[in-house]
Amino acid sequence: MEFLVRSENQLPVDTPVERRQELRAGERARALELREAGVLKRLWRVPGRNATVGLYEADDPAALHDALMSLPMAPWLDVHVEALATHPQERAT
Amino acid sequence: MEFLVRSENQLPVDTPVERRQELRAGERARALELREAGVLKRLWRVPGRNATVGLYEADDPAALHDALMSLPMAPWLDVHVEALATHPQERAT
Amino acid sequence: MEFLVRSENQLPVDTPVERRQELRAGERARALELREAGVLKRLWRVPGRNATVGLYEADDPAALHDALMSLPMAPWLDVHVEALATHPQERAT
Amino acid sequence: MEFLVRSENQLPVDTPVERRQELRAGERARALELREAGVLKRLWRVPGRNATVGLYEADDPAALHDALMSLPMAPWLDVHVEALATHPQERAT
Amino acid sequence: MEFLVRSENQLPVDTPVERRQELRAGERARALELREAGVLKRLWRVPGRNATVGLYEADDPAALHDALMSLPMAPWLDVHVEALATHPQERAT
Amino acid sequence: MEFLVRSENQLPVDTPVERRQELRAGERARALELREAGVLKRLWRVPGRNATVGLYEADDPAALHDALMSLPMAPWLDVHVEALATHPQERAT
Amino acid sequence: MEFLVRSENQLPVDTPVERRQELRAGERARALELREAGVLKRLWRVPGRNATVGLYEADDPAALHDALMSLPMAPWLDVHVEALATHPQERAT
Amino acid sequence: MEFLVRSENQLPVDTPVERRQELRAGERARALELREAGVLKRLWRVPGRNATVGLYEADDPAALHDALMSLPMAPWLDVHVEALATHPQERAT
Amino acid sequence: MEFLVRSENQLPVDTPVERRQELRAGERARALELREAGVLKRLWRVPGRNATVGLYEADDPAALHDALMSLPMAPWLDVHVEALATHPQERAT
Amino acid sequence: MEFLVRSENQLPVDTPVERRQELRAGERARALELREAGVLKRLWRVPGRNATVGLYEADDPAALHDALMSLPMAPWLDVHVEALATHPQERAT
Repeated sequence: MEFLVRSENQLPVDTPVERRQELRAGERARALELREAGVLKRLWRVPGRNATVGLYEADDPAALHDALMSLPMAPWLDVHVEALATHPQERAT
Repeated sequence: MEFLVRSENQLPVDTPVERRQELRAGERARALELREAGVLKRLWRVPGRNATVGLYEADDPAALHDALMSLPMAPWLDVHVEALATHPQERAT
Repeated sequence: MEFLVRSENQLPVDTPVERRQELRAGERARALELREAGVLKRLWRVPGRNATVGLYEADDPAALHDALMSLPMAPWLDVHVEALATHPQERAT
Repeated sequence: MEFLVRSENQLPVDTPVERRQELRAGERARALELREAGVLKRLWRVPGRNATVGLYEADDPAALHDALMSLPMAPWLDVHVEALATHPQERAT
Repeated sequence: MEFLVRSENQLPVDTPVERRQELRAGERARALELREAGVLKRLWRVPGRNATVGLYEADDPAALHDALMSLPMAPWLDVHVEALATHPQERAT
Repeated sequence: MEFLVRSENQLPVDTPVERRQELRAGERARALELREAGVLKRLWRVPGRNATVGLYEADDPAALHDALMSLPMAPWLDVHVEALATHPQERAT
Repeated sequence: MEFLVRSENQLPVDTPVERRQELRAGERARALELREAGVLKRLWRVPGRNATVGLYEADDPAALHDALMSLPMAPWLDVHVEALATHPQERAT
Repeated sequence: MEFLVRSENQLPVDTPVERRQELRAGERARALELREAGVLKRLWRVPGRNATVGLYEADDPAALHDALMSLPMAPWLDVHVEALATHPQERAT
Repeated sequence: MEFLVRSENQLPVDTPVERRQELRAGERARALELREAGVLKRLWRVPGRNATVGLYEADDPAALHDALMSLPMAPWLDVHVEALATHPQERAT
Repeated sequence: MEFLVRSENQLPVDTPVERRQELRAGERARALELREAGVLKRLWRVPGRNATVGLYEADDPAALHDALMSLPMAPWLDVHVEALATHPQERAT
């Protein structure tokens, strides 16, 4: 099933540059793994914000939760998840 | 997977009594079927309101949607669904 | 550019069945055209609601507006649009 | 009577690991006691968040308050409680 | 247990005067009964609005729900209930 | 005149125990004085929160303000006041 | 004591012109009486809306309620009242 | 001074086509006059909605109010106005 | 033109007493100047809060902004401004 | 395409004066460049707040995002972007 995931990054502004870069690199690497595993399907930036909207696929909300918590930035992310239902128009395709 | 479903009944106050009773009877009958099918697991009233909170189980959001739309009152219900993840404490039980 | 489009259908409950079916058929047909034109890329149902979330692509907000207003249901849709920016992770792909 | 309890954990990100583990272990132990006492009946995770939704049973709001405040994490939890009424459908069961 | 009950009266402005007076008289009579039964303990008007805040006492939310629904105006009332816990300061008194 | 006063206590979690106890003791003592002066008439806990709802009586909003600011916890309280009007039902009693 | 009163006029657009003019004339006349009685002290328009902000003075919320309900438009007004406290700066003047 | 004006058009869907066209034509004509008078400086559509954002210039809020109320659609517009201050960066230009 | 100005004082609770007194004295002195200049016309306290509602008069929003920023407390004030239009009832007076 | 950009500056009050001046100077310089590049078209202050509303033009949301993130104050800005569609009235001009 698919989920729309809105995520605001609240890493403090005064986080040391090195720590920040390390977290970002880890985030990119883990996101890539989630893409390859078919969990992260699309990712957009919310313009003007340190925030993203993502389209995820997971077996259930618990699996999605585990995927999101595996991101190195997770402790600083304010995340809202919306479970979506496939629309009949698409099922028919 | 389980869903918390909040539902406000907005059937107009001036609906004829017969029509109202017919809808309520149909609603009860369908809810009973959903209970027996294991889809509707718990149902509470929001005190003071013509509204309910329900705990549902369905394979995915699309199946939940179909179950909710099968209720005779569906056209008058303002529904908000929240997908929940089983807590590890319970998985361990 | 891509847009996330949230759409609540507020067609009155007492709309005659024939009119409703006619509108729905027209909606499906127009949506199919928008899909084929690459404007409507994904469509989901918000479970429990007569509402959808769609992923659209259009040259600019004016073109998106025209596409959305070309839907036969448009006069009854309460629509909120969010313009999204491609994430660098995807640009790199 | 039953209560729906929504709880956001706001323990600071920079809490030392040991302190965090100690609090979590205490939380699990106390939650288990509340389960055995029939106070905590169900617990879900809000996917993507350090937050839970719980179904509690207590004699009255004061007893529920005391139960919630007995959790070691209580000082960091932002809690919202909703008192629910048994639905006649269930009373009839 | 005690409840704070906020109630907005949404009886349509164009309700015939007689019907309105009949409803108000019935409302007053039923409210008086609830007072005598110890269910309705205090009642205030929200200044400038056709709305009240009431302090109710009932065995549980289901009993409160039944009391509120017994008011003749109930179909036109938009009600929000908050369950309150006796404060230890008062228990000690 | 009467006021409904909602008060969230935002004393930081890491306030030293002694300071916290001193403030609580002072708060209880001052609240008792306000009770005896007929200013604080009822006090409830919002279950699950470090928050209260109180029923106050004061000559006017300025007198209420002075009473609330005389509480030792005042600098940490986030307070919302609602002025209520006696309901004619009660004036008639 | 003084109150800030925000009032949205929700008289239906299709109210016959004569009825509308009659209500407006009555509103002006009653507002003038409230001014002369010292109850209505200032009145502003919210630009772009059929809405006003007013500064009222009354003995208590019940007296304010009666004054507001004496306006011929009262059944169509959505009113929010805020009780204000004289600021010490002004008391000193 | 300049104002940002957000305007939602709530003309009922079932307004007869002729009446709707007459209103739209009148709206366009009056808007053109306001442009020529330097009152309406820019106008945008909110994509997906029957709504606009406009940049207006007027001597004061009362003059803006009169301009907005001179639009034939005014009775059906839900308008929110925000008064803006010229930024020093622009004053310096 | 007149403005309604709502201002929440967010000076940290742990600001040293001397600094706080110095700021308050400066605030009072500057407010007095604004009164004498006819900019600050009325000031109220929001009961229970470290907040005020003020009625200001200024040539335009930029002049109001400069006046508000001239207050020594400005860096700690969370301010919301509403531009009001003189009501025709008052213009006629 | 054009965007309305609302931006709240949350630079901490206790930022050293020098650092603050350096950031402001950099902000002005970069804003000037964006003006000259035709990206920043208008800028207003929200009266009473350390906040602005800006009218920007960019090829797409990603380009706008890059422009906004190029401002030295970006890490402290809370930004909300609204994509606007040119109104047919203006296209016709």
